[in-house]
Amino acid sequence: MATDADEGASNDMQLNPAGAELLDNIKSAAPGSVILDSEERYRTDPRQRRNGQEGLVVAPKSVAQVAAIASLCNQHRVALVPFGGGTGLVGGQLAYDLPRPCILSLERLNRIREVNPSATLVTVEAGCTLQQVQAVATDKARVFPLSLASKGSCQIGGNLATNAGGSNVIRYGNMRHLCLGIEAVFADGGVWNGLSGLCKDNRGFDLRDLLIGSEGTLAIMTAACLKLVSVPSDRVVFLASLAHPEAGLRLLEKARLRFDSILSAFELISRVGIDFLMETDADFHAPFDPLPDWMVLVDIGSECDMELSERVTDMLEEAVSESVIGDAIFASSGAQIESLWSLRDSIPAANRRIGAVASHDISLPLDALVDFMTDCEAALAAIGEFRVNCFGHLGDGNLHYNVFPPRGVNAVELAGLQEQVRHCVYETVRSFGGSTSAEHGTGRVLAEELQQFSDSAYMGAMAAIKAALDPHGILNPGAVLTHPFGS
Amino acid sequence: MATDADEGASNDMQLNPAGAELLDNIKSAAPGSVILDSEERYRTDPRQRRNGQEGLVVAPKSVAQVAAIASLCNQHRVALVPFGGGTGLVGGQLAYDLPRPCILSLERLNRIREVNPSATLVTVEAGCTLQQVQAVATDKARVFPLSLASKGSCQIGGNLATNAGGSNVIRYGNMRHLCLGIEAVFADGGVWNGLSGLCKDNRGFDLRDLLIGSEGTLAIMTAACLKLVSVPSDRVVFLASLAHPEAGLRLLEKARLRFDSILSAFELISRVGIDFLMETDADFHAPFDPLPDWMVLVDIGSECDMELSERVTDMLEEAVSESVIGDAIFASSGAQIESLWSLRDSIPAANRRIGAVASHDISLPLDALVDFMTDCEAALAAIGEFRVNCFGHLGDGNLHYNVFPPRGVNAVELAGLQEQVRHCVYETVRSFGGSTSAEHGTGRVLAEELQQFSDSAYMGAMAAIKAALDPHGILNPGAVLTHPFGS
Repeated sequence: MATDADEGASNDMQLNPAGAELLDNIKSAAPGSVILDSEERYRTDPRQRRNGQEGLVVAPKSVAQVAAIASLCNQHRVALVPFGGGTGLVGGQLAYDLPRPCILSLERLNRIREVNPSATLVTVEAGCTLQQVQAVATDKARVFPLSLASKGSCQIGGNLATNAGGSNVIRYGNMRHLCLGIEAVFADGGVWNGLSGLCKDNRGFDLRDLLIGSEGTLAIMTAACLKLVSVPSDRVVFLASLAHPEAGLRLLEKARLRFDSILSAFELISRVGIDFLMETDADFHAPFDPLPDWMVLVDIGSECDMELSERVTDMLEEAVSESVIGDAIFASSGAQIESLWSLRDSIPAANRRIGAVASHDISLPLDALVDFMTDCEAALAAIGEFRVNCFGHLGDGNLHYNVFPPRGVNAVELAGLQEQVRHCVYETVRSFGGSTSAEHGTGRVLAEELQQFSDSAYMGAMAAIKAALDPHGILNPGAVLTHPFGS
Repeated sequence: MATDADEGASNDMQLNPAGAELLDNIKSAAPGSVILDSEERYRTDPRQRRNGQEGLVVAPKSVAQVAAIASLCNQHRVALVPFGGGTGLVGGQLAYDLPRPCILSLERLNRIREVNPSATLVTVEAGCTLQQVQAVATDKARVFPLSLASKGSCQIGGNLATNAGGSNVIRYGNMRHLCLGIEAVFADGGVWNGLSGLCKDNRGFDLRDLLIGSEGTLAIMTAACLKLVSVPSDRVVFLASLAHPEAGLRLLEKARLRFDSILSAFELISRVGIDFLMETDADFHAPFDPLPDWMVLVDIGSECDMELSERVTDMLEEAVSESVIGDAIFASSGAQIESLWSLRDSIPAANRRIGAVASHDISLPLDALVDFMTDCEAALAAIGEFRVNCFGHLGDGNLHYNVFPPRGVNAVELAGLQEQVRHCVYETVRSFGGSTSAEHGTGRVLAEELQQFSDSAYMGAMAAIKAALDPHGILNPGAVLTHPFGS
């Protein structure tokens, strides 16, 4: 969609570097917000692959200070790059190639503002860590079901900005589903208080879901009202061995038929991931001997005692008798459950120790998933010899498809193949109608990809909305949209 | 938020009447789409309270025809008013005071395009009725969980446009949660194919949720990919008598603790509603004798057999022993369940037979709900004598708060009080942080209300987005936004 609206605004896209005048103005409008020693941590990514540029780092102490800073950057035409826990995987938090930007860290907006009397909602500021929010829920005998490996350092603002997902999306949804309201500051400093926390509210357009996942390019989210859910007290987790992911999908169908509403996680694990753990961690013990090629980790939990162990055992026995699965390790106590989950959760660290040629966060229609895997493996084999660790949220059709060098070869030696590998994986994903960014966001790493392969009516509408809400293009330039107001 | 973007576009807001030239162009670009006898049904609302103006009625047969018509209306600056099943309650489908508009009925786009192999998704066109979609799900031994009284005539396009809710939102969410992708036509005729149906896709901005609930003011949705869920085979429905809605909230808390994930509906029924049924339907039999002041209808359903009857009975016995409820009628067979639900579903018709002074679709924070009811009743009593039928989706905090004349008085006699009553209810809702439109939408009836009482940063952002996506303001003018590009 090309509209008249963007043409008007695109004349005014020149950004200026953050200079002494802006600094003075910020010091006076938002006293105490400037961090003069620009620390390294605002410029490096968690996988240490990318570096952001140096900037004027500010950490405002209130929403009013955020608004004042946004308004000043807007007036000075200085790029404003929001920064949360710094754990984003697609470079949304790391600017480069801009006139010196203002880097806005939300770290000091870290209050839990309110838990409602029935403990169904918690209102928190953007700088709270995910772990902080989970702890509040636990205190109230409730659960905040967003679950990410980086929970100790990632912040709610970043979770919102990237519409974070994780292992429990199959049951509880992603950040968009867990959020009942936001507070946000627009580019001109206008503050929207949308924290009502109502379950149902059909007044006007859904700006909440538009801003969630927009990665700081449309507004800066400063607080959110989040859902807390009941604790699943009758809980079973099992790890089942499979000959092939196709069997995983058959087991998923069985589990959905019986436990659709209480199925909390359905995770695929590849033998390659277990091999990586054995190669890089001397203390690691493999869960099965001999090791199967594939496994699924399944988490089911009911709020009322329903003899879940028996019912899940019944399903597993049926699955064994039909040769859907080989064997299963079953956990119903807290420690056993934790131990099975720690196996799953240790895989990303093992991946980092091995070192990937290229990592992909993709999703596919479930019905196309097996064919995708077959085709993609064949296509990669035509490029060279690789080990693929394909794992993750099978129940959502969301795979982390990470490509590694063969044993004994360092990823650095294959760096020249990286682009070819990415291209191969993404082409195959697209050919099956999948997504090249399932849960990590678009950031700067995938912005070009998005621009090149998206529906043109969709891209036109995105550009028009960007121009409408951020007419000077100051908010996180280069993230999501390569050419904010249309190419 | 006021941006530069809207100022540019607002110069160009003059709309033209649909004339002979447009008619000729449409006949040639979208052959067979014009309905020359403009039928009455495109101009009346389901409560027969409002009439829309006469227009050029078109019913395109394909998405390409929708695109051609939109593009022509955009070029001719003629208002385009989308029309679905015509069951909307806030006048979103009924234009008035416009230069003769083009009324676009989606009725001929009524194909079920596809059910995916695992029957977890169905792709349907906007003109399919809700009942049609429910029937496809049933055929596949699945459920499409949107449940509305108007299911036989309301269309999916209208359900999307208003982000429809209904009785099962507590478990399955509203239309936004049930939709995994849309196809939409923008004002300039650009077609976005966003029907991927992926569970997780974090590429770019969430235009889907922005268009859902925008009531035809940002684009015309022509198809959707919808979620199907498992059938809850072990199911219990009960009707419990209560002294007061506060007891209903206590019961809700008990039900959530045990059955949070499988609680499908939690509906409040007032004695007033039962009185209306007894007054207007000679065949009606009251469920309790003596009649309690309040009742709740609760629906709980599990995908696996878990002896739900026993477990729910346990909860009800506890609730009786703690005097939370008085008595309960319990249903676990199909016919009994249907009979309890038909009681609940017959209330809106009884309301229509009695005739309301004013009806309100409101939502409140659950913790404020009882205080709201007390205050609102007192405030209304200061205006005059009324009977209030307050019923609906208690579990979501969503009440249909309908105000009727005392027995023996016709609503027409109190029509002069309507504005005062509405003002009183909405003021009280706002004082408790509630919403004046929980699930019916804003349409034309509540647009002024929205304009007057919304956060100004929010309204500014809405206006900027409207200007960005529909720069000539042709899409459903007067709905949602009174002054599309800001006042």
